[in-house]
Amino acid sequence: MTHTVVASSTKEVIIGFDKPFCVIGERINPTGRKKLAAEMMEGNFDTVKKDTIDQVAAGAAVLDVNAGVTAVNPNETEPPLLVKTVELVQSITDTPLSIDSSVTAAIEAALKVANGRPLVNSVTGEEEKLEAILPLVKKYDVPVVAISNDETGISMDPDVRFAVAKKIVERAADFGIKPNDIVVDPLVMPIGALGDAGRQVFALVRRLRDELKVNTTCGLSNISFGLPHRHGINAAFIPMVIASGMTSAIMNPCRPGEMEAVHGANVLSGTDENCAHWISTYRDHKPGVTAAAPAPAQSGAPAGRSGGRRGGRAARRGAA
Amino acid sequence: MTHTVVASSTKEVIIGFDKPFCVIGERINPTGRKKLAAEMMEGNFDTVKKDTIDQVAAGAAVLDVNAGVTAVNPNETEPPLLVKTVELVQSITDTPLSIDSSVTAAIEAALKVANGRPLVNSVTGEEEKLEAILPLVKKYDVPVVAISNDETGISMDPDVRFAVAKKIVERAADFGIKPNDIVVDPLVMPIGALGDAGRQVFALVRRLRDELKVNTTCGLSNISFGLPHRHGINAAFIPMVIASGMTSAIMNPCRPGEMEAVHGANVLSGTDENCAHWISTYRDHKPGVTAAAPAPAQSGAPAGRSGGRRGGRAARRGAA
Repeated sequence: MTHTVVASSTKEVIIGFDKPFCVIGERINPTGRKKLAAEMMEGNFDTVKKDTIDQVAAGAAVLDVNAGVTAVNPNETEPPLLVKTVELVQSITDTPLSIDSSVTAAIEAALKVANGRPLVNSVTGEEEKLEAILPLVKKYDVPVVAISNDETGISMDPDVRFAVAKKIVERAADFGIKPNDIVVDPLVMPIGALGDAGRQVFALVRRLRDELKVNTTCGLSNISFGLPHRHGINAAFIPMVIASGMTSAIMNPCRPGEMEAVHGANVLSGTDENCAHWISTYRDHKPGVTAAAPAPAQSGAPAGRSGGRRGGRAARRGAA
Repeated sequence: MTHTVVASSTKEVIIGFDKPFCVIGERINPTGRKKLAAEMMEGNFDTVKKDTIDQVAAGAAVLDVNAGVTAVNPNETEPPLLVKTVELVQSITDTPLSIDSSVTAAIEAALKVANGRPLVNSVTGEEEKLEAILPLVKKYDVPVVAISNDETGISMDPDVRFAVAKKIVERAADFGIKPNDIVVDPLVMPIGALGDAGRQVFALVRRLRDELKVNTTCGLSNISFGLPHRHGINAAFIPMVIASGMTSAIMNPCRPGEMEAVHGANVLSGTDENCAHWISTYRDHKPGVTAAAPAPAQSGAPAGRSGGRRGGRAARRGAA
């Protein structure tokens, strides 16, 4: 069984086909958040703190940490800022981290200060990236997100994206990195622009699982870009990718609808044993009200099931 | 491509892998609804009328009609009552019907008065049922729901359920009935009682599609029996079965959360062309408010897309 271990100094999260879907909180990221970028550049980490606390409370298993505040001189500015952000986040939570940067020096600087076994986000199929990131992944013995694009960009042909993922897994093996430390991002296109985007991802994830035996992830909300009521599309997409074999996603855990889809899909995939997390989270659910955040996990929770009106179809059939 | 045609005198619905998920409204059914059963026995069809209108407005593609008001003497009471109910429902809607009874005489009586090409619900793998129902299906040239249980009951072994479905398809062929007129119900068990129930159904539906090339259906809400917040489980289950290849379900279309999951999964499966139905239904969606019912389908609707905050991960990567 493919198990990717991500850990802080005291907490371990396992990404795997037989484990609950791993929610990687996406919020600590100034990309597209001008206010947060400005704050971080001024050394103000109030929003980072709040995003840390809120995402952990909402049930994130891993927190992505990105400090890409500017496109100007990132090689100089980003390493110290990412280090500072990582240090701050791990001073207030023991949730494992994902170190997210397109600047190799920033990733290495953060790896030096990060506790435990953080996820590196990310390597691509580009030669330069492979040569820069894979030695770090080996040196620090950490897992890595592998994005299936290369020098030619993002192919619209899923077979090409699969081939790029396969190449990364093979190159990683040359460095002594095992497939269970590679979490492939097959790249999710907006369904509003590419009607085939959903089916492409479902088929790709299945192949990545069956043929390469790797865990997978994606930037989840990308699927709904440009459509109205994006959260509804996201909430339908989550169970579909989980049914296809996806094992994690970089997403916003503070959206109750999306998290409910994750929890429901965990029940249906058999990774929420005895439905214990579902029952403890939703036992007092009021119809029409979406739970703000999951209740803390309780052991021995299967009491308190409500009956519902009947046994449904199978029971009816059995009685006929 | 497997197409199951269900039709009224003026309206045709096609169930198929390349078609939007077919929602079969379950409400016109006195099983477990004592008040409705009492009304129907008294000849009061007010609730039946309301359920007809409400389900059509909520987006049901087909309406299931069941008149099983009593276990006492159903062979005598059910045929005339089912005929009356079918006549009433088709007097107020042109939505195609599913004729639902465990009484063969009731099914035949209803087939005589039903317009178009109703779906017969159902045959099982029991010898007696096969011999009673399949000749009617052939004689009236209608499609039929095939439930995968037999004399031995409902097997907990999905391989046995597959074998029963295969037997029904083969026996139907002996009667000259083609596989595209068989809609298999693989039987959905409550996940709260059987932790493997979800994975069983996903695997079964995939095999039924790939090996038998048949459309599939299920009594959807059965999956969540006994759990709190059943609608949340149902809403996660729908995208998962659709991703596995299920093409219809007998369900309550008046539940906005479940219908939103259907519409979202249609977008992601590529069966909502240009996302037109999604956009026309949810273009004015207010965050936190669940739409009560889909707006009428509009042609040429892809205008009015709202932007959202950014292009998301792929766009960010592309720009990095």
